[in-house]
Amino acid sequence: MTNSATDFASLLIGVRRRLDERLPAWLGPRVAAANAVSPEVGTVAEALADLTLRGGKRMRAALVAVGYAAGSTDETIDWTVCEPAMIAFELLQTYLLVHDDWMDHDDVRRGGPAVHAILREKLGPTLFDAGAVLAGDLASGYAQEALFETKLPADRLLAAARAYARVQVEVVQGQLAEMQADRATLGKSGPPASVETVHTLKTASYTTTGPLLLGAALAGATPARTKELESFGLWLGIAFQLRDDVLGVFGDPKATGKPVWNDIREGKRTALVEELAKEPAAALLLAGVLGNANATHDELAAVVRAMEETGARARVEARVRGLCAEAARVLQVMAPTLSPTGHAWLSGAISALGERSA
Amino acid sequence: MTNSATDFASLLIGVRRRLDERLPAWLGPRVAAANAVSPEVGTVAEALADLTLRGGKRMRAALVAVGYAAGSTDETIDWTVCEPAMIAFELLQTYLLVHDDWMDHDDVRRGGPAVHAILREKLGPTLFDAGAVLAGDLASGYAQEALFETKLPADRLLAAARAYARVQVEVVQGQLAEMQADRATLGKSGPPASVETVHTLKTASYTTTGPLLLGAALAGATPARTKELESFGLWLGIAFQLRDDVLGVFGDPKATGKPVWNDIREGKRTALVEELAKEPAAALLLAGVLGNANATHDELAAVVRAMEETGARARVEARVRGLCAEAARVLQVMAPTLSPTGHAWLSGAISALGERSA
Repeated sequence: MTNSATDFASLLIGVRRRLDERLPAWLGPRVAAANAVSPEVGTVAEALADLTLRGGKRMRAALVAVGYAAGSTDETIDWTVCEPAMIAFELLQTYLLVHDDWMDHDDVRRGGPAVHAILREKLGPTLFDAGAVLAGDLASGYAQEALFETKLPADRLLAAARAYARVQVEVVQGQLAEMQADRATLGKSGPPASVETVHTLKTASYTTTGPLLLGAALAGATPARTKELESFGLWLGIAFQLRDDVLGVFGDPKATGKPVWNDIREGKRTALVEELAKEPAAALLLAGVLGNANATHDELAAVVRAMEETGARARVEARVRGLCAEAARVLQVMAPTLSPTGHAWLSGAISALGERSA
Repeated sequence: MTNSATDFASLLIGVRRRLDERLPAWLGPRVAAANAVSPEVGTVAEALADLTLRGGKRMRAALVAVGYAAGSTDETIDWTVCEPAMIAFELLQTYLLVHDDWMDHDDVRRGGPAVHAILREKLGPTLFDAGAVLAGDLASGYAQEALFETKLPADRLLAAARAYARVQVEVVQGQLAEMQADRATLGKSGPPASVETVHTLKTASYTTTGPLLLGAALAGATPARTKELESFGLWLGIAFQLRDDVLGVFGDPKATGKPVWNDIREGKRTALVEELAKEPAAALLLAGVLGNANATHDELAAVVRAMEETGARARVEARVRGLCAEAARVLQVMAPTLSPTGHAWLSGAISALGERSA
């Protein structure tokens, strides 16, 4: 492990500790206010708090700090400025996860019940669909409230607000494109969005570019630095998603926490699938198994073997390496004007996101 | 009709004309960008644009201008400052209507198909549920983008952004409270929110207080004026909603554009219903008819008669008059420091919202 990777790992630990302390303090009064409206509104706010506090990797929140460090001319990170935006990104994630899990009928999230599953239990079967959609909407409102608490010169915060709004537009377009590509129901003639377009909008915007640019805006980054970070985030975000695709088939479920081969059963149009579909011999095999919830273990194993044998996996892995190299190239351009912390964290982010095994 | 009412009517006409011109110009590039992602994402953006351009009363957009006039020390309205916020409020309304209509299975909106009905037609039956939720989410992102386009000292815009975020949190809590009060499925012990709590959160925040405070923030209103407008908007918003409740039962469907007695069939817990339920003799009748989709005309007519005979209607009408009087009292306090336009529009808003018959 390089030094930067260690630095990034410590950043993640520090960010998690910070959020474990700040999120309950932020959410507590909101839950109380919701309970004062009615017990059911309180139930919804509690479900949101539950999911948010259960915590993910907090990687997006960490990337807000990375963006801040990269956008600042100063070595010091002003955590009071970063924290509201970090909380906002966690709540944005809650919002998107609530709607996403409800759509995908995924009852489990972060090792516990998804928000719609909590609401089905507590509000009953007739209200939970609408309740889950409104729960997501409420989290979105909370996220905006958190963002605008930031104590900061207003013009910087405004740049951050623009970056934030853009993330929301992009990620939702990405989700729509992905949903429609996966289920391949074409409402109009014309090809669906390519896997990398979906990744750019859905993953890069929301996972890497968005948090980086939000942090950079809060630090008052120059337009040139903003452009560099946007390009850095784009390469890294696509690499992150392609890595995710590979880990979903070839990863160790114990390390990733996700059941292996689920993407294939669910019919996800991943980069691996797209590569395999280019092989005329494999296309027929794929057609029978992809999105087939009843596919047998042997059928799934045959698809996975074909991904290896045709070189589909190798091509995706090579693409990930290429994308990480692009990100490293942008980092090199930025290097002369980065603080040591900014450099170490950006470099560490490449290892952590693009070269991870979990 | 008083002079102020004429002024407010002209304001509404002017705002409608302005939005008819600006909304297509604002939405056009977004629809093009969505189509560039994929044809289906384009379909969703087109459905949003369709509903938004079909137009409602544009009352919330007009109230942004009223808030601006009331918050400004100047007689001139800077429309370039108000317009992005007006567009944002129209898109916020689109967002909330999309989710609301989908939840309520209301296929018709503004004299045409609701967004989920358009998507069911164009994307097919398996995708439209998720499509409708994401469509609302996209409109929410658009609304935020529109708001942050405002050319303005950043601190004023920041105050506006806070007002906007607060509206979203309040309106969603109001919707949750209303949904749960209507369907009376209690997940916890404790009474549901009162009708006026729901009205405060749902209608007052989103219809009156929110737009007024957003406009006031854009004009750089003093904290004192902001407080006055908040109180004005609260009285007026509750009056507006109670008037709506009365018109839903006693209004002329030709004037209101809404089928009469629908609220009763749908089981809405309106102020009329709450008043009637206080009469022991009427409670039994109500229990058999409220929310009963198969209620006969005679049964519905009996409930409506009881609302008259028990004085339930008179009590609600008296409450509306009382609320309008409260708003007028706040207006009187503000009067010495209002511009003539600000005064006329606020006064006209009381007539237009509280005393309307359609």
